[in-house]
Amino acid sequence: MTFSITRAGHIEFRVTDLERARHFYVEVLGFLENGRDDQHLYLGGLEEREHHGLTLRLADSPGVSHLAFRVADPGDLERLARLYAENGRPTRWLAPGEEAGQGRALRVQDATGLPLEFYHEMERRDWRLQRFDQYRGANVMRLDHFNVQVPQVQAAYDWFTQTLGFYCSELTVTEEEPPSLWAAWLHRKQNVHDIALMNGVGPRLHHAGFWLANQESVLRACDVLAASGYADSIERGPGRHGISNALFVYLRDPDGNRIELYTNDYIIPDPDWEPIRWRINDPRRATFWGHKPPSSWFDEAALVESIETGKLLPTSPPPLRDRPEFVT
Amino acid sequence: MTFSITRAGHIEFRVTDLERARHFYVEVLGFLENGRDDQHLYLGGLEEREHHGLTLRLADSPGVSHLAFRVADPGDLERLARLYAENGRPTRWLAPGEEAGQGRALRVQDATGLPLEFYHEMERRDWRLQRFDQYRGANVMRLDHFNVQVPQVQAAYDWFTQTLGFYCSELTVTEEEPPSLWAAWLHRKQNVHDIALMNGVGPRLHHAGFWLANQESVLRACDVLAASGYADSIERGPGRHGISNALFVYLRDPDGNRIELYTNDYIIPDPDWEPIRWRINDPRRATFWGHKPPSSWFDEAALVESIETGKLLPTSPPPLRDRPEFVT
Amino acid sequence: MTFSITRAGHIEFRVTDLERARHFYVEVLGFLENGRDDQHLYLGGLEEREHHGLTLRLADSPGVSHLAFRVADPGDLERLARLYAENGRPTRWLAPGEEAGQGRALRVQDATGLPLEFYHEMERRDWRLQRFDQYRGANVMRLDHFNVQVPQVQAAYDWFTQTLGFYCSELTVTEEEPPSLWAAWLHRKQNVHDIALMNGVGPRLHHAGFWLANQESVLRACDVLAASGYADSIERGPGRHGISNALFVYLRDPDGNRIELYTNDYIIPDPDWEPIRWRINDPRRATFWGHKPPSSWFDEAALVESIETGKLLPTSPPPLRDRPEFVT
Amino acid sequence: MTFSITRAGHIEFRVTDLERARHFYVEVLGFLENGRDDQHLYLGGLEEREHHGLTLRLADSPGVSHLAFRVADPGDLERLARLYAENGRPTRWLAPGEEAGQGRALRVQDATGLPLEFYHEMERRDWRLQRFDQYRGANVMRLDHFNVQVPQVQAAYDWFTQTLGFYCSELTVTEEEPPSLWAAWLHRKQNVHDIALMNGVGPRLHHAGFWLANQESVLRACDVLAASGYADSIERGPGRHGISNALFVYLRDPDGNRIELYTNDYIIPDPDWEPIRWRINDPRRATFWGHKPPSSWFDEAALVESIETGKLLPTSPPPLRDRPEFVT
Repeated sequence: MTFSITRAGHIEFRVTDLERARHFYVEVLGFLENGRDDQHLYLGGLEEREHHGLTLRLADSPGVSHLAFRVADPGDLERLARLYAENGRPTRWLAPGEEAGQGRALRVQDATGLPLEFYHEMERRDWRLQRFDQYRGANVMRLDHFNVQVPQVQAAYDWFTQTLGFYCSELTVTEEEPPSLWAAWLHRKQNVHDIALMNGVGPRLHHAGFWLANQESVLRACDVLAASGYADSIERGPGRHGISNALFVYLRDPDGNRIELYTNDYIIPDPDWEPIRWRINDPRRATFWGHKPPSSWFDEAALVESIETGKLLPTSPPPLRDRPEFVT
Repeated sequence: MTFSITRAGHIEFRVTDLERARHFYVEVLGFLENGRDDQHLYLGGLEEREHHGLTLRLADSPGVSHLAFRVADPGDLERLARLYAENGRPTRWLAPGEEAGQGRALRVQDATGLPLEFYHEMERRDWRLQRFDQYRGANVMRLDHFNVQVPQVQAAYDWFTQTLGFYCSELTVTEEEPPSLWAAWLHRKQNVHDIALMNGVGPRLHHAGFWLANQESVLRACDVLAASGYADSIERGPGRHGISNALFVYLRDPDGNRIELYTNDYIIPDPDWEPIRWRINDPRRATFWGHKPPSSWFDEAALVESIETGKLLPTSPPPLRDRPEFVT
Repeated sequence: MTFSITRAGHIEFRVTDLERARHFYVEVLGFLENGRDDQHLYLGGLEEREHHGLTLRLADSPGVSHLAFRVADPGDLERLARLYAENGRPTRWLAPGEEAGQGRALRVQDATGLPLEFYHEMERRDWRLQRFDQYRGANVMRLDHFNVQVPQVQAAYDWFTQTLGFYCSELTVTEEEPPSLWAAWLHRKQNVHDIALMNGVGPRLHHAGFWLANQESVLRACDVLAASGYADSIERGPGRHGISNALFVYLRDPDGNRIELYTNDYIIPDPDWEPIRWRINDPRRATFWGHKPPSSWFDEAALVESIETGKLLPTSPPPLRDRPEFVT
Repeated sequence: MTFSITRAGHIEFRVTDLERARHFYVEVLGFLENGRDDQHLYLGGLEEREHHGLTLRLADSPGVSHLAFRVADPGDLERLARLYAENGRPTRWLAPGEEAGQGRALRVQDATGLPLEFYHEMERRDWRLQRFDQYRGANVMRLDHFNVQVPQVQAAYDWFTQTLGFYCSELTVTEEEPPSLWAAWLHRKQNVHDIALMNGVGPRLHHAGFWLANQESVLRACDVLAASGYADSIERGPGRHGISNALFVYLRDPDGNRIELYTNDYIIPDPDWEPIRWRINDPRRATFWGHKPPSSWFDEAALVESIETGKLLPTSPPPLRDRPEFVT
């Protein structure tokens, strides 16, 4: 059984103040505002064609409602529902329009505890790729990937690759012999990742990665943030990743939810790509230029919701050490 | 029947002076030299992993030997051989190593007359993506696409999409009602094209497109060419395409073979992408900024070889007018 | 006698529709709007600190009111008034505030016929260099230079260098022996020019040059113009100048006044800089990449006002041919 | 009395291994090698026209031989010699050619202890600004400035501005009332600085700043360094300075001498520029994006030579605290 998952499609962040969050994402970073109601802001990037790539939902604490993947074949929704049910995982159907702009969709609580959504039908909006007059701030093009922390990376890796059909582009192993899998970058679309699995306290969303038009936009993002009073939101970078080769910067939104602005990785058109393998303590792995990440980057991440109750789920610690030696 | 074609894989240009061509491609533009013998230079880009992406072969006139597509499933080679044979088209098997670094491969003379190659096995070389010390000149990352002129675009379109399984990203139609298909951009990997079919005298290769690291590299390519005495090789651009959104420049190598340096197009992860449709005389179609292409860009293109005799094939004129009104 | 001229300070364009001009300059190109009244819009760049760098004045035809240079020593205004009076040239004093934000200033009709202004005192405004949240469109940093067409370049050159104290960075001579001076790039601030004198029908302003933050901004200017329906305003470029080394694009505003967006030239801190000398028909002189300028670039330029009557002045043809051989 | 100092002209670093230093500066960073002998390497940037902008001299320990300023008027050399002699400071004449390519020049031990050189005549070399085929690595254009640590900033400031005629672009004061001068950025050429005076253990050279062609080159410098095994040489940045607005990165050469790669500051054509004033603990002052500098950036700097003995001079601590609160 294979599934027609095409890509990371959208994500829903919980925020405690919609206007404050709107200022950060729309006014400063230049996300497009595609729609809104009392409880939600529906945002997107210049290269996206769907109703939303990032939803901000008013809540009493930060966190993540769900991570959504698109499927090309609408019949996969039923097949995925059966798969998760057979594996004893909770599932829930969303009626058309229950999520604005979206057709019937499936939410599942993955074995990792992650709240995943699978959808096929989504309202299209006008394409802004060549509306250069609307490029602003960080020139955010599109949602690129999710990075999640889970205590059992190997089990999650097996599920995502063997059952859901993700491909692995790069991976990180521990220094022991034999080594254990510490993190994996998995993709369905043809670049480095749609989802990265990272060893750590989980289930948590570490960050959502958004693709920028070019490297200058990463610098401009920092400039605009600092000019707008958000210098403190810059948590790590700009830098070059060893993994993925991307130029990146990590930000914390006003609620502490983390996003990555990311560009300049590579394409993987061939399914027989041999994953690039890194040792966890290689100093060029996380930041090719050698910069040490701050400890907050390992300690802090976003809790995720139960798809049944909407409550934030408890977390468990990982058996493996949750960070490399190379941290400030 | 579907085929596992993954991407445009490599192309072989005929050149009349290997050293002269090497200076242009390697010394000035910064292509990597992966290998050579008396008759061939095997070149590549920084993001590529295979033995060659561009071969230069010594010949008594310019032109193109073959355009190669990779297949993920080696069994597709036999299936493609049968398909072409059943359609009455010439095919020829290449033994492993007959083309340096390559396993057993299939050449066919397509119904359009184009000499296509399909291959699966190709020697891998060390990856240079993060060998930034080897970035030079135009920072050429990889072969991106072929653009061919054929007299019967509609027939070629039908074959490539319905039989070979290519997807259409964008297309151009004539101004008449009902309109005729004038050009189509077709892809297997997830960006705008692996092959573009353009109405014109054919079969001819119009150009091979190579992907650059960023927009600055397009400007730098012009700077380095001019500083090295190759200003005359710049035929058109730099400019922004309406189609594909790419920043581009077209060059003529010392033999007149045309390449495009190209960057900043978009990705298409969803198979149900609805093609963007342009009228041929839309002034923003070819160059979004409004620049008119020179007439040479329509008049001149590279002849292609017979896969059986190695001779250059005769061409036929198209029934449709071969260019927009919008030409200098 | 030497004068303390520091730089090209501002220019006043005549426009026939203020709102239309505002859309082009402010909404699309991102000039800052520093002030306005019924007859004027006062614009500026992100790096400028004065009340205006570009004034748009409502008039019944396009053209140029005056070109202003700043002097560091306010006493130079009287000395310049005497100098021009002694040379039989018309002068006129502007009272403080007669030009908004400006102190007492001097206008003269130069021997070339050009309406020059000299000023010292100008209202300062808040600096926007680090207001990255206000960077938009072309990221226009500052007025850089004036380029004028005059029939007698040698005489104008002598006056500007020997009497006004300008330095020459680069010059162009005809192909004859002995050669005649065809154009000269003259500066007071330490880059390539504050004013360029070009052989041609004159007195006319050929263009005002504005400095952009970087090369990407030249490309972005074209993108934003085309996305906003102004593709036709792009007259020439983007390209690299041989002279000055700058990356450039020439635009025509909705009234036909010409501006250049310009970046990446070089600095000249030493007064004993030896001018770079070009022959007029060197194909890399005007565009290093070899592109031919369009004939409109030579045929069309802006008439200038009489400082006494405000009427546009008649022009005279030059004795030398007004363009290189290298034109489309 | 005023002097015709035009700019920071060149600097001489002591290095303990010429080949190792050559690899770092020439092979990796792309400095031009203009000449060499057994004891020296004479390097330069693409925009420079003189014999050397950076000299590496073989010595038994790192450090700095002298910091050189060019004077436009050769007669200033005698006047400067008298000035320093009258102030009881050591002076020494260098015969023409004693420093390769240079005419008669003056060295002085400034009151701060800094070994300054003043020169007028220097051999010109071919200009490489448009030799884009020779751009490599970090695309180093030219020496921009010196940054020195001295215990008595106020006294040094008075001397440089009142006696030598430097202008102040920006300054930093302590948080006390009344505040003390903590650092000053001084210029003769028309950008932010030729020399910065910073409170600290001194006399020491903190760093020499080199100007790059654009922001991309700062990123590329890091990429090339890391790819060449020099990731550890990246001490601080890339980042945006609040002061000067420049995009920067600080590097340590294999001997520990510090250089800054720097671009995108602003011009100051007007002598009545009002200096920008920063409080030392403003978090956006040193790094606009809010990053804290490492303590090594304050603790470590290069000793300077006696112009008489060639021995490295002892240092004194400053009475003011030597760093802001904002340090990792």
